[in-house]
Amino acid sequence: MNESPTLRPVVVDLSVSTFARVRPVPVASVDLRGPFWGHRCELNSKHTLLGQWDLLESTGRLNNFRRVFGEYEGTFSGLFFNDSDLYKWIEAASWAIAKGPDAELERRIDEGISLIERAQEDDGYIDTYFTVDRPREKWTNLRDLHEMYVGGHLIQAAIAHHRATGNARLLHVATRFADMLCQRFGPASENKVEGIDGHEEVEMALIELARTTGRSRYLDLARYFIEARGHGLLKGGRFGDAYFQDDVPFERLESLSGHAVRALYMACGITDLYLETGDTSLLRRLEMLWDRLTAHRMYITGGVGSRHDGESIGNDYELPNGQAYTETCAAIGNMMWCHRLFAATGNARYVDLFEWTLYNGMLPGWSLDGQSYYYVNPLENDGAHRRKSWYECSCCPPNVARTIASLPGYVYGTDEQSLYVNLYIDSDATIDVAGKTVRVSQRTRYPWDGVITIHLDTDAAFTLKLRIPGWVNAAADLSSGTTKDPSFDVAVNGERVEAAISSDGYVEIRRNWRRGDTLRLDLPMYVRVWQSHPKVPDNRGRVALSRGPVLYCAEQADIQGVDLDEVFIDPSNVQASWDPTLLNGVVVLTGPAQRLAIDSSWSGASYRPFGLMHGARAAQTQPVSLIAIPYFAWHNRESGPMKVWLNYREA
Amino acid sequence: MNESPTLRPVVVDLSVSTFARVRPVPVASVDLRGPFWGHRCELNSKHTLLGQWDLLESTGRLNNFRRVFGEYEGTFSGLFFNDSDLYKWIEAASWAIAKGPDAELERRIDEGISLIERAQEDDGYIDTYFTVDRPREKWTNLRDLHEMYVGGHLIQAAIAHHRATGNARLLHVATRFADMLCQRFGPASENKVEGIDGHEEVEMALIELARTTGRSRYLDLARYFIEARGHGLLKGGRFGDAYFQDDVPFERLESLSGHAVRALYMACGITDLYLETGDTSLLRRLEMLWDRLTAHRMYITGGVGSRHDGESIGNDYELPNGQAYTETCAAIGNMMWCHRLFAATGNARYVDLFEWTLYNGMLPGWSLDGQSYYYVNPLENDGAHRRKSWYECSCCPPNVARTIASLPGYVYGTDEQSLYVNLYIDSDATIDVAGKTVRVSQRTRYPWDGVITIHLDTDAAFTLKLRIPGWVNAAADLSSGTTKDPSFDVAVNGERVEAAISSDGYVEIRRNWRRGDTLRLDLPMYVRVWQSHPKVPDNRGRVALSRGPVLYCAEQADIQGVDLDEVFIDPSNVQASWDPTLLNGVVVLTGPAQRLAIDSSWSGASYRPFGLMHGARAAQTQPVSLIAIPYFAWHNRESGPMKVWLNYREA
Repeated sequence: MNESPTLRPVVVDLSVSTFARVRPVPVASVDLRGPFWGHRCELNSKHTLLGQWDLLESTGRLNNFRRVFGEYEGTFSGLFFNDSDLYKWIEAASWAIAKGPDAELERRIDEGISLIERAQEDDGYIDTYFTVDRPREKWTNLRDLHEMYVGGHLIQAAIAHHRATGNARLLHVATRFADMLCQRFGPASENKVEGIDGHEEVEMALIELARTTGRSRYLDLARYFIEARGHGLLKGGRFGDAYFQDDVPFERLESLSGHAVRALYMACGITDLYLETGDTSLLRRLEMLWDRLTAHRMYITGGVGSRHDGESIGNDYELPNGQAYTETCAAIGNMMWCHRLFAATGNARYVDLFEWTLYNGMLPGWSLDGQSYYYVNPLENDGAHRRKSWYECSCCPPNVARTIASLPGYVYGTDEQSLYVNLYIDSDATIDVAGKTVRVSQRTRYPWDGVITIHLDTDAAFTLKLRIPGWVNAAADLSSGTTKDPSFDVAVNGERVEAAISSDGYVEIRRNWRRGDTLRLDLPMYVRVWQSHPKVPDNRGRVALSRGPVLYCAEQADIQGVDLDEVFIDPSNVQASWDPTLLNGVVVLTGPAQRLAIDSSWSGASYRPFGLMHGARAAQTQPVSLIAIPYFAWHNRESGPMKVWLNYREA
Repeated sequence: MNESPTLRPVVVDLSVSTFARVRPVPVASVDLRGPFWGHRCELNSKHTLLGQWDLLESTGRLNNFRRVFGEYEGTFSGLFFNDSDLYKWIEAASWAIAKGPDAELERRIDEGISLIERAQEDDGYIDTYFTVDRPREKWTNLRDLHEMYVGGHLIQAAIAHHRATGNARLLHVATRFADMLCQRFGPASENKVEGIDGHEEVEMALIELARTTGRSRYLDLARYFIEARGHGLLKGGRFGDAYFQDDVPFERLESLSGHAVRALYMACGITDLYLETGDTSLLRRLEMLWDRLTAHRMYITGGVGSRHDGESIGNDYELPNGQAYTETCAAIGNMMWCHRLFAATGNARYVDLFEWTLYNGMLPGWSLDGQSYYYVNPLENDGAHRRKSWYECSCCPPNVARTIASLPGYVYGTDEQSLYVNLYIDSDATIDVAGKTVRVSQRTRYPWDGVITIHLDTDAAFTLKLRIPGWVNAAADLSSGTTKDPSFDVAVNGERVEAAISSDGYVEIRRNWRRGDTLRLDLPMYVRVWQSHPKVPDNRGRVALSRGPVLYCAEQADIQGVDLDEVFIDPSNVQASWDPTLLNGVVVLTGPAQRLAIDSSWSGASYRPFGLMHGARAAQTQPVSLIAIPYFAWHNRESGPMKVWLNYREA
């Protein structure tokens, strides 16, 4: 492990992790461009983050820090873990300034760091909920009060700020906090306090701090926390031990369950532990858990969390649309886990799901104007569900901001001799590959168009690995990106290349690249119609539509005067077209559909005799037009019903 | 209103309620017989109640009382509202001893009452959670801490005990508590504290206490609580104001929502208020709310409560089977409300739902051996859901016990000139009708058989009103019992009577009855197949089966080796047969069915392309046999999957 701090602004620094197959590229090395992602990065830096800072101020989150050192006289505001909102904001803003100077953001980051420095106690403890009003309650309720969860976000903020700026002020705060944890918590055999936090997060933070500082004690503590979980240290609580994954030790865990964000953050931490230790039994179980989660407990959006009750993952095939919880943070947790599993394996199926969840699990949580957020992301709604600019528990807004701000760091990856092109995004990058600095640019209208032109502006010999997304294969399901149909084209300098897809899901092109080489990848952008496993009750007789990496939904705004429950689409006859004016410009799907009216005699009852008096629907049909829009853009117009899974009837 | 206490052991005493159309018959007046209900009443008295008493002791609920007066030194046990379990138990045991002496139960009732008497404070306050440890917190959190809810159950227990025994010891405790409430709470204009309890219950208890004592102040306070609700007095909390029905005043309420038991107990209290005041605007809204609840938000079991989150009623058509909450207490609340609406209107549709919910909503919550209970009643389960002998929040077990113990009081009703036969149960009764004492017995194997023979052993002139259950009409839906098909037979002394069904759902036979008159009612016991509204997503492509008042389900135990999700029944070909050995004797439904195997290639994914590679199910079918058992008897054998709503495919 590295002995000196690194300044490369990578999200997960695997530069010296022995067991990483692929290493991330710094956030600062990639500039996203164009109306889709370039616009969103700009929106995030110039509007979202500034708006969130104002809310940190107006909701009292900053005053909670000021009251520690006497600059604010009022009471503590909000929930006990609200410090984490400032930390996540600083992390987000740090990735944003890693891309280039921004005086507005930097001023606020510095103000935030000053508050944090002054609120830290002499022994390294920091949590404004406890310091002033409840000093004697510190560490008395690890199960419910999130002190380590909050501290984990402090550590991640400090690492991001240090990597982005080289400034170690906040890292100094974070290491003092982490050192205090190391002194206090651990095995009883080392005369330490046995304990784990009810909300996982600190594990991955501590491992990242170990990577950053080269100090193995943080890795050791993370390993202790991971190994101590599942033995009932947290006992009790309204939702039972599974809620915080404390019912079964990880080495015997059969499926992820309980609170979705906790489960996924735990999985991230354990994947980080594998990346540092190479314990293959961990990786085998992680992959098994990922297989089962994605095959049986994940929404078609990539969202996870089927129950409002306990914000939790459901049983296999328990995937209700209207009551889906699918917290935006859980989609982000899924992406974070996929990123780590990809680093551990080099298998593109994890990037497939990262990308799919980016567009369809996380992005719906963020309004097109960048100012409001969903916490809960149903796949069907009556129109009452609205994004809000902030929440009492406001974990999701800054989590969206840090994900968008760090997105440039997910576009590429490298190993000793390869450059992985993982995300297709109009962008310019400068990346170290095989000992050379490579300038690489993508020109594309992806996700709307499947043509990606890649310009290489360096002389270097390396393998270019182009991810062929799982959706390219019309026969592939959502979680197995390994068998792919080669219905795509690759050309180098205008000459078609015959290239097979490797077992890890890439087309590999090894050559001595020359300055000015141009590669063209043509991915087939057809409309894909999805069916659902027969055990998912909500989706019987329904299909979902996607095109490229984008999942679609129908909104009442486009089908006026007809109840969406009465619309039956013809899945064989759906067309895509570009609408430059709709929702900032989107590809819409259209096609003929039929209205099968629900028999009007149903109005007074939910149950009635089968087949004796009436059918369920009127016999007469009426032609209507289907218009479907990207699910991520739903509810950015008037409010009204929305559905991802649509009734179908073949022509 | 009556000025002197009544000793008639009726559940709801409407003897002098001006606005009651029908009055209940005392519990003591009716003896239930036979292997269905006679057995269950005996089981309740001899096993269920004694077992629950032992649990009140072993879980510390009785010690919570003893520690108030120093006979127990330990800490408070359990939840803050646990006193209510003893109160509900005393109510249940009181209805049981109303039927005849039972030394075991009486000894325990007296011990319980002694504990309560000694735990009451001088000013009438009683709540063991507060008296010892938290005297300064009394009445400081009406929203969450249930002091009035608990007190309401005290009042109901006291009334039941007084009506059953004539002994006023506990009634004295209850009136002192109620008097303290009257002095403390009420409109600010009367210099009282504005406040309502977060959990409705005290309203119906206070009105019953007014009926019992003749003191109008209890009715006035109940009216105050009812009118003060819906104006935000409770503000806040995790689930919002709708959770405790405090979001909208009753006179503007459009649908019942929020916590199901609270909503239904509120509705009971308001119906009681109507019965005493005759305010028709209340009755109109109550009937509208009942129509909407039963038409759009009720399970086919009669159960209410679609969400675990907040134990709450869902949106219209939000009726998931596996995640149904349908708390046993909510089914009981629904029955209590139906009983009151029937008293207010005389309309049999409310008795129809009372009976349906008795068999299919409440009874599943009680094991056949009388020793364990469901709190949550899903309509579909993988076999993991088990009845328990007790719960930390153990509201349901004593609620089941008091409902069973009071069931004799629901069989008949009277008005000035009529005897209403509401429930068909093998039984003997002695009832005052039209100034005469009438001995009436029913001989029947109902619910398994539709033949009911009624013997009248008195000379008297009155109208006998026979309820024709809604399920008799093959075309009726679950909530509209008013239009009925006369496919039944009535004969008096062997002669068929041509009798139409009145608009309130009864066949009326007015005559001078003679000692020895025998009436035979023959209700058609056919298998009924139900379909569900197309907007209930879980039930698409499925049907449910019932016969008479009994809803059926399929259990894995009867269909070995085939996944229930793969079984498709033929709804036109289901037969009923009596099985004397199964589950203490039940009618089972059988018929041919087909196995349509879920395509094996589905194993690794929840989503895949529609129609391109595979169908959802294997093309080959395989004949299997359907066996369905009464839903109330599910999970009384080995554990395994269960389904109420079954796939169908017509032959």
